[in-house]
Amino acid sequence: MSTQPVLPQGVSAAEFARAIAAFRKVVGDEFVITASDRLLPYRKIMIPADENEFAPSGVVAPASVEEVQGVLAVCNQFKVPVWPISTGRNFGYGSASPATRGQMILDLKRMNRILEVDPVLCTALVEPGVTYQQLHDYLRERDIPLWLDFPGPGPIVSPVGNTLERGGGNTPYGDHFGNACGMEVVLANGQVLRTGMGSIPNSTSWQVFKYGYGPYLDGIFTQSNFGIVTKLGMWLMPKPAGYTTVMVTYDDPEQIGVAVDTIRPLRIDTTIQNVGVMANEAIVLTGMKRRADLYQGAGAVPQDLMLSEVRKMGLGAWNVFFTLYGTDKQIAPNLEIVTEAFSKSGGKVIPGIHDGSQVNELSLSSFSLLNWVGGGGLYWFAPVSPARGTDAIRQMHLARSILADHGMDYLSAPTLNGRDLHHLVAMVFDRNDPDASKRAKACYGKLVTEFGKQGYGLYRVAIDYMDQMAQIYGKTNRDVNRSIKRALDPNGILAPGKSGIHL
Amino acid sequence: MSTQPVLPQGVSAAEFARAIAAFRKVVGDEFVITASDRLLPYRKIMIPADENEFAPSGVVAPASVEEVQGVLAVCNQFKVPVWPISTGRNFGYGSASPATRGQMILDLKRMNRILEVDPVLCTALVEPGVTYQQLHDYLRERDIPLWLDFPGPGPIVSPVGNTLERGGGNTPYGDHFGNACGMEVVLANGQVLRTGMGSIPNSTSWQVFKYGYGPYLDGIFTQSNFGIVTKLGMWLMPKPAGYTTVMVTYDDPEQIGVAVDTIRPLRIDTTIQNVGVMANEAIVLTGMKRRADLYQGAGAVPQDLMLSEVRKMGLGAWNVFFTLYGTDKQIAPNLEIVTEAFSKSGGKVIPGIHDGSQVNELSLSSFSLLNWVGGGGLYWFAPVSPARGTDAIRQMHLARSILADHGMDYLSAPTLNGRDLHHLVAMVFDRNDPDASKRAKACYGKLVTEFGKQGYGLYRVAIDYMDQMAQIYGKTNRDVNRSIKRALDPNGILAPGKSGIHL
Repeated sequence: MSTQPVLPQGVSAAEFARAIAAFRKVVGDEFVITASDRLLPYRKIMIPADENEFAPSGVVAPASVEEVQGVLAVCNQFKVPVWPISTGRNFGYGSASPATRGQMILDLKRMNRILEVDPVLCTALVEPGVTYQQLHDYLRERDIPLWLDFPGPGPIVSPVGNTLERGGGNTPYGDHFGNACGMEVVLANGQVLRTGMGSIPNSTSWQVFKYGYGPYLDGIFTQSNFGIVTKLGMWLMPKPAGYTTVMVTYDDPEQIGVAVDTIRPLRIDTTIQNVGVMANEAIVLTGMKRRADLYQGAGAVPQDLMLSEVRKMGLGAWNVFFTLYGTDKQIAPNLEIVTEAFSKSGGKVIPGIHDGSQVNELSLSSFSLLNWVGGGGLYWFAPVSPARGTDAIRQMHLARSILADHGMDYLSAPTLNGRDLHHLVAMVFDRNDPDASKRAKACYGKLVTEFGKQGYGLYRVAIDYMDQMAQIYGKTNRDVNRSIKRALDPNGILAPGKSGIHL
Repeated sequence: MSTQPVLPQGVSAAEFARAIAAFRKVVGDEFVITASDRLLPYRKIMIPADENEFAPSGVVAPASVEEVQGVLAVCNQFKVPVWPISTGRNFGYGSASPATRGQMILDLKRMNRILEVDPVLCTALVEPGVTYQQLHDYLRERDIPLWLDFPGPGPIVSPVGNTLERGGGNTPYGDHFGNACGMEVVLANGQVLRTGMGSIPNSTSWQVFKYGYGPYLDGIFTQSNFGIVTKLGMWLMPKPAGYTTVMVTYDDPEQIGVAVDTIRPLRIDTTIQNVGVMANEAIVLTGMKRRADLYQGAGAVPQDLMLSEVRKMGLGAWNVFFTLYGTDKQIAPNLEIVTEAFSKSGGKVIPGIHDGSQVNELSLSSFSLLNWVGGGGLYWFAPVSPARGTDAIRQMHLARSILADHGMDYLSAPTLNGRDLHHLVAMVFDRNDPDASKRAKACYGKLVTEFGKQGYGLYRVAIDYMDQMAQIYGKTNRDVNRSIKRALDPNGILAPGKSGIHL
């Protein structure tokens, strides 16, 4: 309690103290945090941003919709903004940190009920504090044959938080928002909206049909600050009769082009049903080596060095992973088709590989990425591209060159979802090294700008570049978002700065 | 020109005349219609509503985005509302008619360019006036192996209009909004918004990735009056290597239950990839008979009579149609699985059926429905249900009983999309018969109310019941829609009353 709290913009110390007292009345003393040492767990920001710039004012953790409403009443009264988090594991994009200094983190971890799982309709209804691990355990304990699709840091992440950021995973249910159905949203004025079919009294169909009647609203509550989602419907994948995971390796980095042009039609015609992670040599190496064991020189690790390392392990410059699901008889013709197509494209096809992320096995193994350099720094750079070989090659060269200019390695794991490629690039660096942090930050900004100039936008962005990304998406887009923001949150108490949306 | 025009609410005759003159300046004299005889083609409302209640003030037909902007400027100046239509073929829901009396129909038929078809990425970008027939011809003339998914009245309908109403079809791309990607929207203030990736300068990815960055907005421009969509991106299905359409017949009406419980898991696990139309005995008969040839008595046609008719043709009380797509080798195991499952459920499985709507063949055959009674009256009643046998049976009995109370037949063609069932019921009647029209109208209202009481909402509703349906979806839903409406269209010039949304 030694240090002064970070005050919300325009709020005096006295007013803030009154607001904190009011929060305590709503949620109980122990669920309001202002002491800076107790805020530390919320400040593992990972990105190279100035922590002071994104410092929260405190934390308030409601246990129910009613308490969320109570908190919002206090926010409106004292003009104190809140930044909602589910579990706060938005790693590489800002973790639990608000996009601007001086917001109360609204921690929804206590709202962690699995409200319903329907094994017949293959749906679930969960609160924001539920983690993938919790839902996984729930299903296993009850022997419910439904699978989960989860993002990289799986077990500790919230399906609600990840879906609201429009995150993805590696099974046929990889588009998390696309497989969400029905939301409960507490609005800034305390009204509770159920979207889709959920607002009908005694609704029978909230988790089965998304669109409801009239404007389909759910999308505006993702990557936004228009409301607080307190319940989310999910579609779950029925456990398949069987599966065969296939790896295809390509020796030459330029073969990202043929790889993409081979996967795309098979993905669109559903011969391949999941997103087909494509890992380059460098990101594959992070699972096995530390950078320093391989290279101590200046600048990015020379690509030849990495290529020769992965070749020793039978891996390639690009390594495509996907899974064929179904009965043996259903898989057989698909395996034949993909084997022929990928072989013809110059890839080496290896069926029978194991990849837990494609078959409902939760693990923390993706964190091995952070061991590449150590020091815990991570940015995800995530431009979208058409799923076309020429674009993939162009993006690869552009990313690699900008990263190299900043002494950073190109750790790439694009996912191909059909018509688009999410060109995911992990930027890992030592956060304890000011120079490395500075270079990472500059590099990210340069990547955002240069990709934007080429007509490529990001699907998701770290908190320190939200405003810049919103600029790239243009004035009309910003105007519309601001109009809706004003309409639904006239006092601007919800997550100011999220996705570049301010009052 | 003999009759007085229908004036927009609160607009004097003099002011309206000035507005019309201003519209003429924007789009040219010939593209503004007020003469009542020239309005007749726009007034084939089909539903049994009082035509005066929904009478338009006139028609204005812009040829470009700039002209749309010009029209909106006039609308804002004179407070004259416009009701946008693409081709106005919203049959059974109100056709081209506005939801309230005294709106100018904004006819977008002149904006009918196919702006782009990408045969590699399997996408298209079209304007509102484009019809399915036009797009179909475009693809065929260029030998582009892409298929269309279209609603019942296929050829003459606009993909844009149908998608904005969240209509559906019978192929794996049956969810039209789900397969839309990127919109251009002219807002009430004349600003032009491109959604998703489209607002980035020189965007590369507008038609490949839907969500863009920040709030995903597209949904709010469907079934709404928040903007005028002037371009729409579409995902098209690559022509499959082959296909086998399968019919399954069930003798007993109650077997809708086992039918649904058999389709659902196969549809969710993607063994069956398309929506599986399920036609009952009565709707099947409409394609072959006239009602009067079968029955001249009072009330609904006795079900036994219809069942004995369809039995003669080898059809059942329920007749399920779906298609397996792929190579012969891919189809074989799926056919084996479905044959076993449906046989086990008590259905008779007949592979090798022809259904053009599932294999890219456009036709007007669905209009045979109207010949059942003649007189051109049509309402679609479209409640949503969980895809669960018990719900399907419950909805069937409820619908059949309410229809019978009003002397109407139960013509039913539910589609099963995975977790939900769209229980589509065609209500055909003689519009020239005032009693029949009155009964149809009363029946629709009763169906809406009684289904609502059971927790079932409609996915789409006719213009004369939009307000009542909005009531069922609750106050918070209405409040949110009205807030967004006020924010984006402060003068309320866009389609007042659409989906029950008024200022």
